Formats: sequence, C-alpha cells, structure tokens
Amino acid sequence: MMQADQQQQVRLARRPQGKPQLRDFQLADVDVPSPAGGEMLIQTLYLSVDPGMRGMMAGDTSYSAGFEVGQPLTGRSVGRVVSSKNPRFAVGDYVYERLPWQHYSLSDGRRAKKVDPVVAPLSTYLGVVGVPGFCAYFGLMEIGKPRAGQTVVVSGASGAVGMTAAQLAQLEGCRVVGVAGGSKKVRYLRDEIGLDAVVDYKRAGDLTDALREACPDGIDVYFDNVGGPITQAALALINRHARIVVCGQTSQYNNLSDSGKVAPEWLIGRSALMQGFVVYDYADRNDEAIARLSQLVRQGRLRYRENIVDGLQNAPQAFIDLFEGKSFGKQLVRLTKGDGGN
Amino acid sequence: MMQADQQQQVRLARRPQGKPQLRDFQLADVDVPSPAGGEMLIQTLYLSVDPGMRGMMAGDTSYSAGFEVGQPLTGRSVGRVVSSKNPRFAVGDYVYERLPWQHYSLSDGRRAKKVDPVVAPLSTYLGVVGVPGFCAYFGLMEIGKPRAGQTVVVSGASGAVGMTAAQLAQLEGCRVVGVAGGSKKVRYLRDEIGLDAVVDYKRAGDLTDALREACPDGIDVYFDNVGGPITQAALALINRHARIVVCGQTSQYNNLSDSGKVAPEWLIGRSALMQGFVVYDYADRNDEAIARLSQLVRQGRLRYRENIVDGLQNAPQAFIDLFEGKSFGKQLVRLTKGDGGN
Repeated sequence: MMQADQQQQVRLARRPQGKPQLRDFQLADVDVPSPAGGEMLIQTLYLSVDPGMRGMMAGDTSYSAGFEVGQPLTGRSVGRVVSSKNPRFAVGDYVYERLPWQHYSLSDGRRAKKVDPVVAPLSTYLGVVGVPGFCAYFGLMEIGKPRAGQTVVVSGASGAVGMTAAQLAQLEGCRVVGVAGGSKKVRYLRDEIGLDAVVDYKRAGDLTDALREACPDGIDVYFDNVGGPITQAALALINRHARIVVCGQTSQYNNLSDSGKVAPEWLIGRSALMQGFVVYDYADRNDEAIARLSQLVRQGRLRYRENIVDGLQNAPQAFIDLFEGKSFGKQLVRLTKGDGGN
Repeated sequence: MMQADQQQQVRLARRPQGKPQLRDFQLADVDVPSPAGGEMLIQTLYLSVDPGMRGMMAGDTSYSAGFEVGQPLTGRSVGRVVSSKNPRFAVGDYVYERLPWQHYSLSDGRRAKKVDPVVAPLSTYLGVVGVPGFCAYFGLMEIGKPRAGQTVVVSGASGAVGMTAAQLAQLEGCRVVGVAGGSKKVRYLRDEIGLDAVVDYKRAGDLTDALREACPDGIDVYFDNVGGPITQAALALINRHARIVVCGQTSQYNNLSDSGKVAPEWLIGRSALMQGFVVYDYADRNDEAIARLSQLVRQGRLRYRENIVDGLQNAPQAFIDLFEGKSFGKQLVRLTKGDGGN
C-alpha cells in the first residue's frame, strides 16, 4: 500500500535485447517531491510513447542521452502545474516538458514550455502539434520540398509523423502514396485521409512492384519513417533530383540489418539527396510550426489519430506495442488520479 | 596495312567481368568519314580516360547510355576541326565533344563546344578545366558548402576531381585532409599541394583511427570519389550538419559490395546530408566554372597533374590502369599522326 505522498514510476530494468519486453521495465514507488525555490511541481497528464526511446534504452546515445538501468524512463509529457515557486509558472498552467515516467515531477521551468488548450487539445502537443508534427512539417517542407504534381511516398504513414507528413504533402498538391501495414490502417489512409494510393507492406508481395504501380511517375520525395526493405523498394523508383527525408528508421531500432542500407552510388545517377535531421535542428522555429499545424487542425484540414492508453502501469506495454505494428496513430498514455498517482 | 583513308578505332569486344582486361577491347580499322552538309570532321588530339566508362561497358545505364559490344567506345575528347561544312565551326577551331575512340570523327556541331588554348591548355579541358574540374567545383561549392575553418576530407585525392576539390577547399580556408594510396601520391599531396594531412589508405591499418588522427575536429564535408571502406571510416567521424558529396564511387565500379553502404539512420543523429550529383545538373553554369577554374590555373593557385599516354592503341591499358591505382592525375591519351591516324 502506497503512502499518500508516494507515487509510481516506470524504470528501465534492463537493456532490451531485440524487441523490448515487459521484463525490461520495472514499476517502483517513489516519493512525490516538493518544489524548492524556483521550482514547480508538474502533474503529468499525458505521456508520449515514442519509438525513439528504444535507442535510448540500448544505451545508444547517437542522438539523445541514453537511459540508465534502474533509473526512470523519461519522455515528452504534457502536464499541469500543481504548485509553483517559479515566478514564470502559475498553478493551473499547462506545460510541455520531457519528464520522468511518473505522476508528479519537479521542474525548474527552463525547459518547460507553456501550452494552450484553446489553441489545440492538450494531447496534440505530443502529436500533431508537437514533436511528431514538427518532424513532419520541417522534414517535408525543408528537406522534401514537395512541389504540386510531384509524387511523395511516406513510409510509416499511419504513425503520427507519417500521417501528418502525408497530409501536408496533400495540401501542397502532391500525389501522395502511403506505406502502412494491415488492412485497417490502409483503409483509414485511403478512405478517411484520402491518400492517392496506399501500399500494404504486409500483403504487397514484391514491394517494388507494388510501389511502382502506386507511383507511375516515380518518386520525387520519399519521407522515410521506417527504413529497411521499404527504403530499398523506394530507392529503385526515385526520380532525378529526388529528396529522401530520413526522419526515422523504426524497422531498424531493434535489429540493425543491412536491408535498408543505401549504396551512395545509387544517389549519383539520380542526383538525389538523402538527408537526416532531428527536430532540434529547427528548435528556433517551433512556434511557426505550432501556429501552422494548430491552425490546420482547427480548420479540419489536418487530421490526427491518437491511441490513448490509460494508466501509468500500462505504459511499458504501450511502448512494446509500437514495435508490433499494433499502434495506430500517436501512442499516448493518459495518467489519472488513482492509478498510483493518488 | 591500312589505306590512307582508314584509321583505327577502339571497340568494346566484350563486357568486362570484374576489373577490365585487354581482351575486353578490340582495335579495328574503319574509314575516315567525310562531312556532309552541316557536319565537320574533328581530328581528336586528346582522349579522356574516365572510370565512369566502366559502368557504360557493363551495360549499366544508371547515369549514361551504355556501350554496345562491337561498337566503338566513346569518351570526352578535345580535337581540332580539319574540315567543315558547318557554318559555326571553321577549320582550325578547337572543340570539346564526346567522340568515338578514333582519330577522325564527324560532328554536326550541336554538342561540340569551342575551347580556347589561350584561356587554358587544351588538355585541361578534359581535366581541371573540364568535367573533372566541374565535378570538384559544383560538388564542393554547391553541396559541400565548405566554410573557413571546417574540416574537408577528400577521397581519391590524387585523382583529377579529388585534387581539384582539395585545392578549392584549401582556397576556402578549410582544413583539408586527403585520402590516397601509395607514398608517391601521399608525398605529392602533402608536400606539393600542401594538404593539412594525407591518409594513405594502403598503409593506414585502421582507416577510422587514421582519419580520426587527421581530423581532430571531426569531418564537416566528405567529398567522396571512392566509396567503400573509406566512406565507412569517414561516416564514423562526421560532425553535426555534415555534408557528404557523393561524386564518384571508383572502388565500387568493378565490384559492388556492401562495404560502402550507408545506414540512413546514421544520418539522422548528425542531421547529415548525403547528395549525389552529375555534372550535367550544372550544365547551364559550365562557363562560370571554366572562367573560375582557368583563372585559378593561370594564377598558379590551382595545380593539376596529367598522366598522358601516347597512342590510341594504348588507350585500353590506360583505362585498365585506372582501376589498379596506377594512374596519378588525370589520365589522358594523346593521339598523334602515325599512330593509326595517318
């Protein structure tokens, strides 16, 4: 039985081997902290469950600090200020910050960003109006540079980044082809989002043949969230001056294979560009992205889909599901009173 | 014994398997043609011997039309107009054009470009003031975008493209590190060209260690002419926002291995760009490149090195030598009267 001033926390129990499993995680009871001068206490309302955390669990610090075994996981979170000794934040303010996977966290406010539930629903600051949206927006517009009439292929099109990128490309007047797995996702992308074509990589047989059929004029922009065999198939179809936006490589996080590696020579003949990026590259333009994306959401021109799981204790399974292709839309955990947070 | 109106021609005898061999080539006697209305007859003075021809021999049409077995090879050439029924070209004009590997060729002039031996020596229109120079100039400046103080690594640094790219980077105020094979080339690049460091890939042992020592501040621009293991070593050292200029992949032409393949994920964490190009992308800016490069040559600020072989019959061996690492500087064949050209 927890004390009234205690809460639960999700820790890394061990570094995953291959796909993450429940035993890689551990629930622990910890004290609810009290803010000192300059600090505030944030009650987390939504946790973002991100595939990128997989690399941090592996101790792979290629683009983020890694997690330590025995320490709490941290993730992008939206919460509410419940007590504050920081003059910039008042009780009742809503904030976005990377926080431990627990109910109540201290913050000195330096990395906290106020978010406005009137501008966009709170949960969307972790999705379409948050980092996934920024990835789609900057990756597509700054690297992909789509032009009306061009063909844009988006892998992982049913994910938060992919769905946003695909719709932004639609708004630019492109022919947009999504790649996703499973008839439910394919139907949604085709019938609800209205993509020009959707390739079901689980049923396609030869991926290159399927993509070729979906892209009769070749591929001008390949927005890649997945990597692996889908990338190989897309590369075979790129047009001259194609742009390959390397946003994520979900298929490679658990098992780095050679299947998605690119022969640089391939880029020569097509004068093609392949560029990686992290959303931090555009940190000084986040407000621009929020303004644009939230406006499109309010206008109903940019749809999003969330998969919300309730309860901190269910966060590990929600993370594992990301790699099973079960998640559809932005994977979030909603924290409520009673689920170990009093 | 050839007739007075006959000449020799180098043909593709069979498609090379692996490294090209002499038996892949064939010398044949053909008639010297006569220009019809609108045509001119060009006497070839210099043939360019290019590694890129390897792909065309393989029937690999990834970025050029391929050669046909039994047909003459063609290559970039500089020659002199010896008779003309084309009003735009007069006898005595010097021209640059892709021509068959033979002494006398017809041209309708549409793809011929006049070159001026006063602006630059005729042979340099096939090297430092020609396509190799253009590759170096546009690849480095437009994709590599070097800034003073940054570290630029050039593979194949003793080749025509590499040596030019390395010197252009020096002129931008960069720390320039060359990668080349053999002490003669290394000494030249270090002592004559004055590169900041040169890695001898044949003696380096661990290439990454050797490059790391040569690049204490990491790599900002990797100008790649070679591919393969050198690319792998360079990738390990790229800095944030690095630019990888994929100019050539000499090491891969004969035997496409996985050794130089790039995991797209690697580019994400470094927000790095990898871009292929062909010189044709900048065709409308050739005059700019000629003006800049020839000026630097005249000022003595851009050095070049040529390896000139005499005699059409020696062109096949000159080509084979490219893949043996024997060639040092731009490989050219000089055609003279008497060597099958009357």
